[in-house]
Amino acid sequence: MYNHAPPGYKCPLCTIANGTAAETEMFAGTDIVYQDASVLALLGAFQWPKNPGNVVVFPYDHFENIYDLPLRVACRIHDLSRGIALAMKAAWECDGVSTRQHNEPAGNQDTWHYHQHVTPRYESDEFYATYTRGKALMEPGKRAVYAAQLRAHLASWLPADA
Amino acid sequence: MYNHAPPGYKCPLCTIANGTAAETEMFAGTDIVYQDASVLALLGAFQWPKNPGNVVVFPYDHFENIYDLPLRVACRIHDLSRGIALAMKAAWECDGVSTRQHNEPAGNQDTWHYHQHVTPRYESDEFYATYTRGKALMEPGKRAVYAAQLRAHLASWLPADA
Repeated sequence: MYNHAPPGYKCPLCTIANGTAAETEMFAGTDIVYQDASVLALLGAFQWPKNPGNVVVFPYDHFENIYDLPLRVACRIHDLSRGIALAMKAAWECDGVSTRQHNEPAGNQDTWHYHQHVTPRYESDEFYATYTRGKALMEPGKRAVYAAQLRAHLASWLPADA
Repeated sequence: MYNHAPPGYKCPLCTIANGTAAETEMFAGTDIVYQDASVLALLGAFQWPKNPGNVVVFPYDHFENIYDLPLRVACRIHDLSRGIALAMKAAWECDGVSTRQHNEPAGNQDTWHYHQHVTPRYESDEFYATYTRGKALMEPGKRAVYAAQLRAHLASWLPADA
């Protein structure tokens, strides 16, 4: 509903989910923080300067946006987002966590597969001010370190339906 | 967990949920877009200039943040947020919808009761740029109009567990 993916869209999040994504400076297998049969968490390639470690949580199956997303999948996404938030607190002692989810081009969506951002927050990070100044590519080796730190703290986390 | 509410905190969202909130320019009963035994949706008193109609979705029971929120409640909040998003599309033909949820003071939280913002988005609204320039009080009569428009379109919406 209210879809914007062009005809023949090659979905980058689907290729990551099904394991066929090519490794580039934009994606490496070491970016994957968590994956099971229904949801994934990925260390984003592009990061905001004062909030490194932004994670994108998305479903294995392709749904474009919040209008299309089935509730059973949304519940899994929330559960994993909370797990990521707690792992961020434990791993980095961040001062807070924000989640954001955008739909349609006017809503800042630019990948046509539902995804939720989970962002570590720090005192005086001015996140909303820096948001508009843009994010920058974090090199894969550095992303791998952040992802591994979260994975270590997710080890004790179990999805609610496990 | 990681709580910031001061001792003796008088929670404004609890008073709205249980029907004991005093009517002021900051709250009127006509702000309530939806209420059932577990979740509410409220037309926010403060609104961003290019995104009027921002709604706050929150649980009836008091939980401070994402770390504390039980999954069963989170699922209801998502379900209602999606209903609000669809009502915004139908009522206002907005160009998109964004959700945001903040935890702890460093994460922009300033009311110590979990709540998710559901925001109508418009082409070139520069939401993140205007966010930092602040929101302004919308007068209750105008809020009532926005809330009634959403209620009309929520009439055909049923919570997933109904």
